[in-house]
Amino acid sequence: MDERTGLPVVGMVGAGQLARMTHQAAIALGQSLRILADSRDDGAALVAADVRVGDAGSLEDLRAFARGCDAVTFDHEQAPNAHVAALAADGVAVHPGAEALRYAQDKQAMRERLSAMGIPCPRWAPIASVADLQAFGDEVGWPVVIKAVSGGYDGKGVWVLEHAAAAAEVLGAGTRLIAEERVAIVRELSAVVARSPFGQGAAWPVVETVQRDGVCVEVLAPAPDLDEELAEHAQALALRIASELGVTGVLAVELFQTAHGVLVNELAMRPHNSAHWTIEGARTSQFEQHLRAVLDYPLGSTALTASVVVMVNLLGGADDVEPKAIDERVHHCMAHWPDVKIHLYGKQFRPGRKVGHVTTLGADLATVGQRAREAADYLMNGDARR
Amino acid sequence: MDERTGLPVVGMVGAGQLARMTHQAAIALGQSLRILADSRDDGAALVAADVRVGDAGSLEDLRAFARGCDAVTFDHEQAPNAHVAALAADGVAVHPGAEALRYAQDKQAMRERLSAMGIPCPRWAPIASVADLQAFGDEVGWPVVIKAVSGGYDGKGVWVLEHAAAAAEVLGAGTRLIAEERVAIVRELSAVVARSPFGQGAAWPVVETVQRDGVCVEVLAPAPDLDEELAEHAQALALRIASELGVTGVLAVELFQTAHGVLVNELAMRPHNSAHWTIEGARTSQFEQHLRAVLDYPLGSTALTASVVVMVNLLGGADDVEPKAIDERVHHCMAHWPDVKIHLYGKQFRPGRKVGHVTTLGADLATVGQRAREAADYLMNGDARR
Repeated sequence: MDERTGLPVVGMVGAGQLARMTHQAAIALGQSLRILADSRDDGAALVAADVRVGDAGSLEDLRAFARGCDAVTFDHEQAPNAHVAALAADGVAVHPGAEALRYAQDKQAMRERLSAMGIPCPRWAPIASVADLQAFGDEVGWPVVIKAVSGGYDGKGVWVLEHAAAAAEVLGAGTRLIAEERVAIVRELSAVVARSPFGQGAAWPVVETVQRDGVCVEVLAPAPDLDEELAEHAQALALRIASELGVTGVLAVELFQTAHGVLVNELAMRPHNSAHWTIEGARTSQFEQHLRAVLDYPLGSTALTASVVVMVNLLGGADDVEPKAIDERVHHCMAHWPDVKIHLYGKQFRPGRKVGHVTTLGADLATVGQRAREAADYLMNGDARR
Repeated sequence: MDERTGLPVVGMVGAGQLARMTHQAAIALGQSLRILADSRDDGAALVAADVRVGDAGSLEDLRAFARGCDAVTFDHEQAPNAHVAALAADGVAVHPGAEALRYAQDKQAMRERLSAMGIPCPRWAPIASVADLQAFGDEVGWPVVIKAVSGGYDGKGVWVLEHAAAAAEVLGAGTRLIAEERVAIVRELSAVVARSPFGQGAAWPVVETVQRDGVCVEVLAPAPDLDEELAEHAQALALRIASELGVTGVLAVELFQTAHGVLVNELAMRPHNSAHWTIEGARTSQFEQHLRAVLDYPLGSTALTASVVVMVNLLGGADDVEPKAIDERVHHCMAHWPDVKIHLYGKQFRPGRKVGHVTTLGADLATVGQRAREAADYLMNGDARR
């Protein structure tokens, strides 16, 4: 507890945009997020009062960080699972706990567990050799997707292979791998929920996530024309996973929609890009909800604030952008799209980098989506494409 | 400009809840508000990364603070006007500037200027003696309102007197005073607008402010059953004042609604309690808009996000509250009212203190208002009144 305010102190390991936006939510609740940063220049470290610089991979640093926190949670999956367990053994309220977090850190463990629960997943197998992959690919058909068991995100650590020999290099480097069938997908969806230690669960509407090169480029909330029964099924699936795995905090279940239903693609146990739209688009944002959940507060309403919400990521364009040009673009973007909400993460604009997002709300998907995309394109590329 | 982000640095003099909420808005825009605080325990100093401790009354401290800021603005009216002018002479972009700010710092100057502009105000006169007050009261009728020309807020520096002799003590203390007729009011309204140095203006809907003992207790947005013509007139009045006085940033024009129209009560040139509802209730909050305005960015949309928005201030109840009890109340409040948005300012709960606010949105004023009031009452008084 912060003696000055009487309110709890949540510590977040990691200082990227998720911590940055969680701090915004913490301020409203009378709190000040404590942040474990790699560097003072991390996005969240630029804006928070209570920043500790340290290594999320060091138990000593994690222990020092956790001291005085009412709850400790995560902006990423990089804190070693054994360290998370050690913190809990010290008496720290860590959310999600090591037992749950394991399934967001280890894709093989996640696939084993979900398969055992009867949750629909793509066909998959652990792969230790080119021969294993050959056998798997011959069974499910080529191309095959291989994934590093740990450490991947935003398309990193994922490869689509036409033949087994192509995996030799990755296997030679000692990377633990699983292979998955390449599913014929209609589109990708995301079912985001929150769960508190008490066991309360809350689900936002299921959204469509539009991907390019393995990176989420935009999110449509709610997922357009999604069958109501399928939407409820996806929400129930996510709540069931949260409950059976003992997840505390926000859980994002990334889904493939196929002709036959949905398959689970990935799990993330933290605020997630597919729910950034909730800042303006839901009564309770995922960042506030994550804080409520890890503090075992009652969860907030997940009602939509508009019938259509579109979030578009700001992904660095072809070139580095001069700092001065960024400010000019913000200026022009505000002039053109006075209703578009801009979120910048305190990063310099470099090619491919996720530097922010924009959100637009309204009644008509075509209009709302177009405004959000145009504003994002302008921020990233200026007049270059206009 | 912050070299790390390419984005501007706004400095805000004062570290209360207005700075705290402005920092939240700054984070979304990729910025980090620089704050001049009296103490590290000030509400905004608890949550911001870039805090300087200093005296808003010292030109030396203000100059040191302003160095490197792209714009300097204010959380309160306490920076001496001459210092604000000196900063501008140094080349600092100060918003609002000294010429405009004067009318928010000096009620006599404000009344003189508005009267000269033909803006309807209560009848008023400067008062230097009991005899002056006697003459004024005999003319307009008793009781009479007297106000300290500078330094008053939230009912402080305002007295309602039944006879002139009652002013002797205040006059004897050397306080500069004006007297105003006590207007027969229907209700109080607030017209909040923003204006940029470029000259762009934007107005939120006119709201009703409900006062108790000179302190705003709740705000109803938009003002219920307000005649459309009168609402437009009030907005136009506020935009005209902003323009003619050269206000930059947010301007709140507090109004008395009478049987014959509206009279201007007070001016505030900063984010204002009567527009806290805009955080959830308008597409652009007053805090984001203030930042846009002082940076000469284009202003954002002031459209409502719901048909009815009610904000209720959290005013400390009869007793000090133990820190532990605050957290319990937050917990219960969230359980009872999952849709009510809580804003706490990082202050301990002491009698009469404004420690936060709650906001509720919806379609029906009676329901929305009741939920907001009940939630606020619970946060302030716990089970005591239930």
